[in-house]
Amino acid sequence: MGITPIIEAMKKSKIVFTKKILKPSHFGKQTILIYDKRLSKVSPHFRSWMKGFSCSYGVEAGESLKNINGFAHHISKIVELVAHLNSRELTVVAAGGGSVGDFAGFVASILKRGVGLIHVPTTWLAAIDSSHGGKTAMNVASAKNQIGTFYPADEIVICYEFLKDQPEERAREALGELAKIAIIDGKPWRKKMREGDSPEEMIWKSLKSAIEAKYRVVTQDPYEKSGVRQILNLGHTFGHVLEADLGVSHGMAVAQGMFFALNWSFAKKYIKGHELFEFLTLLEDVCGFASWNVDSQWNTKSLSEKRVRNLLLKDKKREHGDTVTFLFVHGWGKVKREKVRVSDVIAEARAQGWMK
Amino acid sequence: MGITPIIEAMKKSKIVFTKKILKPSHFGKQTILIYDKRLSKVSPHFRSWMKGFSCSYGVEAGESLKNINGFAHHISKIVELVAHLNSRELTVVAAGGGSVGDFAGFVASILKRGVGLIHVPTTWLAAIDSSHGGKTAMNVASAKNQIGTFYPADEIVICYEFLKDQPEERAREALGELAKIAIIDGKPWRKKMREGDSPEEMIWKSLKSAIEAKYRVVTQDPYEKSGVRQILNLGHTFGHVLEADLGVSHGMAVAQGMFFALNWSFAKKYIKGHELFEFLTLLEDVCGFASWNVDSQWNTKSLSEKRVRNLLLKDKKREHGDTVTFLFVHGWGKVKREKVRVSDVIAEARAQGWMK
Repeated sequence: MGITPIIEAMKKSKIVFTKKILKPSHFGKQTILIYDKRLSKVSPHFRSWMKGFSCSYGVEAGESLKNINGFAHHISKIVELVAHLNSRELTVVAAGGGSVGDFAGFVASILKRGVGLIHVPTTWLAAIDSSHGGKTAMNVASAKNQIGTFYPADEIVICYEFLKDQPEERAREALGELAKIAIIDGKPWRKKMREGDSPEEMIWKSLKSAIEAKYRVVTQDPYEKSGVRQILNLGHTFGHVLEADLGVSHGMAVAQGMFFALNWSFAKKYIKGHELFEFLTLLEDVCGFASWNVDSQWNTKSLSEKRVRNLLLKDKKREHGDTVTFLFVHGWGKVKREKVRVSDVIAEARAQGWMK
Repeated sequence: MGITPIIEAMKKSKIVFTKKILKPSHFGKQTILIYDKRLSKVSPHFRSWMKGFSCSYGVEAGESLKNINGFAHHISKIVELVAHLNSRELTVVAAGGGSVGDFAGFVASILKRGVGLIHVPTTWLAAIDSSHGGKTAMNVASAKNQIGTFYPADEIVICYEFLKDQPEERAREALGELAKIAIIDGKPWRKKMREGDSPEEMIWKSLKSAIEAKYRVVTQDPYEKSGVRQILNLGHTFGHVLEADLGVSHGMAVAQGMFFALNWSFAKKYIKGHELFEFLTLLEDVCGFASWNVDSQWNTKSLSEKRVRNLLLKDKKREHGDTVTFLFVHGWGKVKREKVRVSDVIAEARAQGWMK
C-alpha cells in the first residue's frame, strides 16, 4: 500500500463540532450504532438519542473489548444485525471512548471489506486524540494493539452535550493530552487556556487547534513508517511502566511520563533551566499535576528494577537488543527520538526518585 | 477510503512467473511462511523449500480455516511467532490455494496494522484468480466472506514446479475459470489453447493473459462499488446453488452455472444460436464439460424449489426483496448485470431440466 491513500482519506475526514447532538438521521439511512453500554445507563441525553437508531449494538468499554478472543462472538452478532441492511451504504457509528472507537473502527474496516465509519467520541481523550488519525486496534493475548488497520473515519462528530458530564479526572487526563500537544506543536497554546475557565470549557475551546496539531504530525507519517508519528508518544515509554505497575489511568501515567521525559531532557542539557521551568509550569497549571507527586498518591516502592526492565522491553517501541526509543524534548515544538539503553532509563528513574 | 489507493497498490503488485521456485531469501529477511500443511506432506519440492524459512505456520486448508471462530487461536500463535522479528520489515508469504490465500492475506492486512504480503499460489485456480485483485476474506458463522479487507499483494510468485502436480480435476476447474475469462474479456483466447497441449501446459501458457484480463476488470472497480467487478461472478449465482446443494467443487459448480447463464441468455434472445454454439463449444472443448451433464454424474432430483429459493436469497449478491442480480452474456466480452426475480431463476432451472 502506498503512502498517499490514507492522507487523502484523512483530509476527507470531516470534523463536526456541535453543542447538541445531531439527529440519528444525520448519520445515514443504513447505520449500526456501536456504543458504550454505560452511556445508556448514565446519560439521559444519550439514551433518548440512541433510540433513534433502529440497529444498535451495546458493548462493555475497556481493554477486554479489544481482546481478539471475544471478537468472533461480537462480529457474529453484528453480521446478524446488519443482514437486512444494504452493505454498500452501511455506516458504523461508534459512540464511546478510546476502546469503543478502536473496536468499532476495526469492525468498520473489515465488515463487508470496509463500510462507512463515523466516530462520536464521548470522552475528552477520544475527542482530542484517539478518534483522529485512522488507527484501529485489537489486542492479542496480553499484547496491546498487535492487530488493527489504518482506517480514517469519514466523519468525527464532537458533541459537547455528550462530553461535558464526565468526571473531573477524565477532563484532567485530556488536559494532559493538551499539554503534550502544546509541547510537541510549540504553538502559543497557553493563550487559549484562560484562567477562570472550567476544565471542560478550556478543553472545548482548545479542541480544534489540538486536533489540527495532531493532523499536522499524523499526515507526515500516516502509516507510522518514517518515525515522525512517534513523537506523539511523548511521555509514553515511562508512562506505560507506571500505568502497568501502579494501575493508574493512561492519561495520568502519560502526564507523569512527560515529567520524567522533561526532567531527563534537562539532565541531558537538551533544554535549559528556564525552559524546564516553563514546561513544568504548563503541566502543573493546566493539569493541576502538582498534586500528583511521587510520594503522596502513588506508592512508588513497588517499582523493581526487574519489573521495569521487562515492562520497557515489552513496550511496542522496543528495538532489537537492550535498547528502547525514548522521546526527549529539545525545546517548544522540538521532540526528538533517541535510542537509549534500558539501564539508562533505570538509572534516570533512580535519579528522579522513582526507584530505590 | 478513496478509489485511487488500491489501484496504485495493484499496479505495484509484481507478478513473477517461474519454472522453479525462488529461494526463500528472495522473499525478504523478516518473513513468516503461512502454508497449507498438505503441501509439506505431498510435495518433496515444497518440503525442502519451506525448510529455508526460519519462521513458518502450517494450516489446514479449506473453508474452516476461514471461519472467524478459529481466528483468535491462529493469530495468537502468529503474533508469538513473529515477536522476535522487526515488524516494520515483516512479510507474510502465503503458500496454498484460495482458502490459505484469503486467510493469510487477511492476517497480513491486520497484523501490526498491515505488513508485506507475497502470494505463492499452489493451485491453478489461485494462480489464475484468487491471488489477484486484493480481496481477502473470512467467514462469519455459515455466511461466507462477511469480513475481509482490500489488500493487494506486493508480489505474486507463480511457480510451475508447485502447480504441475495437482490432480486433473484441479486443472479442469482452472480451465473453467479460463473459459469464464475468455467469455468476459472477449479476446481471441482459443488460439492460445492449442490442441495436443496437456491441461497444465494449456493453463500455463494462458495464465499471463488471463491474469491481465482479470486486472482490466478489477482496476475499473477495485472496491467492488460500481458493480463492474461483479461480471467476474458470471456463472456464480446458479453455481452457488449447485455447490451448496450437490456438494461439487466450486470450479465445477461455476462451470455448470455458466452453462445455465449461457442457455438462459439464449432463451432471452441476448445471443444468437451460432453464438451460443461457440460459447458452449469453448466450455466443452476447453474443460471437457460435455461429460458433466445433468443426468449422469449429478443427482439433480435433490433440487427442491424451497431450497433453491433460500440459497439464492442467501447469496451475497442478494438485493432487497425477492430479486437477485444475474449475469447474462450478450456476446463475446459483453457480460451484463440484470435484476431478476427468484421465481424467474426457478422457472428457468425447470426449463433447463435442473428441477422437476
